[in-house]
Amino acid sequence: MTDETKTPDKFTIINELARRRGFFWQSYEIYGGASGFVTYGSLGARLKQNIEKKLRELFVNKLGILEIDSPIIAPSKVFEASGHVDHFKELMVECLKCKRQFRADNLLREFAKIGESEAEKLSLKEVKEAIEKHEIRCPECGGTFGEPKYFLIMFKTTIGPYSDAVGYGRPEAAQGIFVEFRHLYEMAREKLPFGVIQIGHALRNEISPRQGLIRWREFTIADLEFFFDPEEPNCYLLKDFENETLPLVLAENKLRGSEEIVKVTVKEALTKGYIKAEWQAVFMALAKKLLVDFGVPAEKQRFIEKLPWEKAHYAVQSFDQEICVERWGWFEVSGHAYRTDYDLKRHMQFSGVDMRVFKEYEKPVERKRTVVKPLMAKLGPVFKEDAANVAEMLSEADPEEVEASIKKNGYYMLGKCKVLPEYIEIACQKVKERGRKFVPHVVEPSFGSDRLVYVTLEYAYRVKDGRAILSFPRDVAPIQVGVYPLVSKNGLPERTLQIHKTLLDEGFMAEYDEAGSIGRRYARADEIGVPLGITVDYDTLKDNTVTVRDRDSWKQVRSRVEELPQLLRKYFRWKADFEDLGKPFKG
Amino acid sequence: MTDETKTPDKFTIINELARRRGFFWQSYEIYGGASGFVTYGSLGARLKQNIEKKLRELFVNKLGILEIDSPIIAPSKVFEASGHVDHFKELMVECLKCKRQFRADNLLREFAKIGESEAEKLSLKEVKEAIEKHEIRCPECGGTFGEPKYFLIMFKTTIGPYSDAVGYGRPEAAQGIFVEFRHLYEMAREKLPFGVIQIGHALRNEISPRQGLIRWREFTIADLEFFFDPEEPNCYLLKDFENETLPLVLAENKLRGSEEIVKVTVKEALTKGYIKAEWQAVFMALAKKLLVDFGVPAEKQRFIEKLPWEKAHYAVQSFDQEICVERWGWFEVSGHAYRTDYDLKRHMQFSGVDMRVFKEYEKPVERKRTVVKPLMAKLGPVFKEDAANVAEMLSEADPEEVEASIKKNGYYMLGKCKVLPEYIEIACQKVKERGRKFVPHVVEPSFGSDRLVYVTLEYAYRVKDGRAILSFPRDVAPIQVGVYPLVSKNGLPERTLQIHKTLLDEGFMAEYDEAGSIGRRYARADEIGVPLGITVDYDTLKDNTVTVRDRDSWKQVRSRVEELPQLLRKYFRWKADFEDLGKPFKG
Repeated sequence: MTDETKTPDKFTIINELARRRGFFWQSYEIYGGASGFVTYGSLGARLKQNIEKKLRELFVNKLGILEIDSPIIAPSKVFEASGHVDHFKELMVECLKCKRQFRADNLLREFAKIGESEAEKLSLKEVKEAIEKHEIRCPECGGTFGEPKYFLIMFKTTIGPYSDAVGYGRPEAAQGIFVEFRHLYEMAREKLPFGVIQIGHALRNEISPRQGLIRWREFTIADLEFFFDPEEPNCYLLKDFENETLPLVLAENKLRGSEEIVKVTVKEALTKGYIKAEWQAVFMALAKKLLVDFGVPAEKQRFIEKLPWEKAHYAVQSFDQEICVERWGWFEVSGHAYRTDYDLKRHMQFSGVDMRVFKEYEKPVERKRTVVKPLMAKLGPVFKEDAANVAEMLSEADPEEVEASIKKNGYYMLGKCKVLPEYIEIACQKVKERGRKFVPHVVEPSFGSDRLVYVTLEYAYRVKDGRAILSFPRDVAPIQVGVYPLVSKNGLPERTLQIHKTLLDEGFMAEYDEAGSIGRRYARADEIGVPLGITVDYDTLKDNTVTVRDRDSWKQVRSRVEELPQLLRKYFRWKADFEDLGKPFKG
Repeated sequence: MTDETKTPDKFTIINELARRRGFFWQSYEIYGGASGFVTYGSLGARLKQNIEKKLRELFVNKLGILEIDSPIIAPSKVFEASGHVDHFKELMVECLKCKRQFRADNLLREFAKIGESEAEKLSLKEVKEAIEKHEIRCPECGGTFGEPKYFLIMFKTTIGPYSDAVGYGRPEAAQGIFVEFRHLYEMAREKLPFGVIQIGHALRNEISPRQGLIRWREFTIADLEFFFDPEEPNCYLLKDFENETLPLVLAENKLRGSEEIVKVTVKEALTKGYIKAEWQAVFMALAKKLLVDFGVPAEKQRFIEKLPWEKAHYAVQSFDQEICVERWGWFEVSGHAYRTDYDLKRHMQFSGVDMRVFKEYEKPVERKRTVVKPLMAKLGPVFKEDAANVAEMLSEADPEEVEASIKKNGYYMLGKCKVLPEYIEIACQKVKERGRKFVPHVVEPSFGSDRLVYVTLEYAYRVKDGRAILSFPRDVAPIQVGVYPLVSKNGLPERTLQIHKTLLDEGFMAEYDEAGSIGRRYARADEIGVPLGITVDYDTLKDNTVTVRDRDSWKQVRSRVEELPQLLRKYFRWKADFEDLGKPFKG
């Protein structure tokens, strides 16, 4: 088969359809297009909203997870604390001749057959050596490359008129949650466990986003941070999900070069230690079910564990939920990271604000413990007006840590304050403890909305009698029902518009269409994935019945107009069968 | 009355309540807070979503306006074309002593009693003179000010690794629509009029956003661009709205120093020429009704026309919809600008892409017209490989314009190409025109979501028996119904949770609460504006009825559990009276 006659793959088809029907396209085409930026048109925006609505229905409405909406821009401090300023970087090389810049890992993969996970392990020096060894030249002009260097892939800006007030565009929505933990804990009525979700735009200043890979510079992320007590890590939803199967690709097998999928139940995954946190296992099961709801069968999904050097800096264990797509093979749609107390601890350290929660014991416990007593007579002269603060923070610091640090270093660092042994008294005393203070642990499921949109489209796509159909699951279809007059005369449009208005008033996403023949309108509706079509004909004017047509089977039934709202509600909310919408009808 | 005993104003109360109950608060407090950035908590995020849902229901569902979702970051070119890079600036002065920077207009208002609209007229030199004349010093340190200068209030960044690839955060969502006009026109099936809305985050790098004024650096905007043929400017919705009253403050009265409100119907406003475009008048009427739906009575609203020097650079006529609020007086919630063809023309000029639409005449018209014939023999040698392009663009350019420019300047600028008289032949000939090409005109209603949230809160706030109640309109309330066991024992919580689950499955925003006494739970629900409370008691276990309580009147009725979904649907979607939800009941 030559290239010219090859059938285009689904990726090409979906992108062409998406562009033509206005689901999405590359932004700013009139200015030559901007790599990594995509605009959703009417149908795409609504598909994405419906997918996000499903996330909200599950997490916010049913599981009671709080939702927040925080800014995209944050002061530098936030991302210094989170570790992004230090770690959120890619290795880049610049062509000395044409000055074009490339991601080193892309070059190594393409020209030296060094895989992604291997490339991530390499140091600056090793990357340089690999480029030299494989004689990699600029793919654009053939020039040689300069020294590899790190490029921070956050968008940098300045907040206000002062040039030193650096701000960044958020590369994830999670930090907007962590920095507001104290507020959120209060909103959760100071009880663990609880979760917070944020769905919104995020920004990653990719070096050279390759068209189509859906690695965008601006995208929509749904980050869910679930906070729990590490000493009470049990998930109260476990019993509902323990028998769900999870298809896992384990790090231990990857290290042996195998991507074998191990199918285990949630329960087994936990007892065998494959997944470290119960909540994480349950969220993975929920993620799998969600994708099934978006039209991706379980057998086209897997969860692949990240190797130590592939993981983000904050995670102790991390799985990517991947979907099998035609062009790209396994394709990430969500990440599941066990972030422990990393983020809250870092913000505590950088802000000096206590992020710990207090949990009362059922009855006070008496125990011997080390206590740190600040000596005000010593602190006063050294810290002046801050002395009281320092004393308070000292009495809240972990005494074991203070003692250990003083033994080891001869001092203890309290934020920026150096505490010397003579400022304090360390004693062992019996104390009655009412409870304990600790930093909650976090598991994070994180979904890429745009990638969910893409897989929903690819899995909805089919061809029937040579015609394209998007068989969206009925609750994510951008338009629920098309309403058509059989012909555009003799009062049919007027009657159809009445029905259209009734359905809109009832809250359905209904579209009126009278352009072209009825057959053409059905074909157009199938291609944009409208589950039901209602056609008004001359009989409607006589007996007040309409034809209802199913997008997927092209079957038709005849239903009474006054029953439509109730029937459609049954169909969309309660998943009634199409056949239950009326009497069989041969159009 | 001294300051200490003064009752706090509503602004203070709302902000305190919003913070305490988690509607919203200043972001990044643990890092000292960042001016102009606000985080919405659970209730606030949902209130904002519900308000945006009402916008979508009206504009997208009912009026068939398309929605898009485009990136926040755009390449510099977009905002050069839109005029923002040249015009979106504020006058700033820097204290020579402490280096703090201030908006000049704020200083002039505060220390020289020069009003905002007057200050906007002043040149750099006049501002400098005014500061000197009124001896304005730095309010922070008393230092003197340096030369006033302009500060671009867009967030600037770099896209990708090249430092010359400047990008900006969008200060409005409108440009994301204009740059994609060709796609959107196709989605609208190449018919005028049509509208496109975008609701999303926008960024303005304010110099010194003062806390509370709700002039934020990051905010949510809903920009609706409505495109129409300037030769067919009639609005087909006019008949439905012509008798709506609009409270106008006209520019001509403002110029005479009066802010008198002129109450006219939409029809009168148009016939008297107060409003220049029918569509604009109708959108203003819709905006007024929307705000009534959000709880703001018509008599607390006005539309104030902008004076020539107050208007944005793109508008020929512009009104601000203002709401009377306790602290700030008249407070802008939406803007209504007649942008004509300004934006599309500018993007056409900067991109070289034709943004005109073609409208066929009913039958072809024969007329004499000037035509421009490119002379390839001349163009070829000058423009080389671009010659064909230049020729094509020349034949699409407005011949009258070409002729006029050549007469006046001796050349015509086609994008960056200078076209000399000898390159072309200008002739007058009879042509049969099948239709006309033109750039559509635009009216824009633009809503600030955050400001809508604020006025909805302020107008919902009331006090009853010394207790705060947020009497939200029922369709924007963040939580629709609270579900409570009378006491937390004897099977009541279990039965309540069943009812809770049923309501969630039916799609209601329901919240279960068993903390504290039932009275305390009612009080909490009133304070966060939950319209209905359902209480499960011992009778429920016997006869399957529950108490339903009204937030505003505190009245109660007794209803059957199995009828609840239908009753609640009547109440929330069809605005049934509370009394119709069951039998009167004395709790």
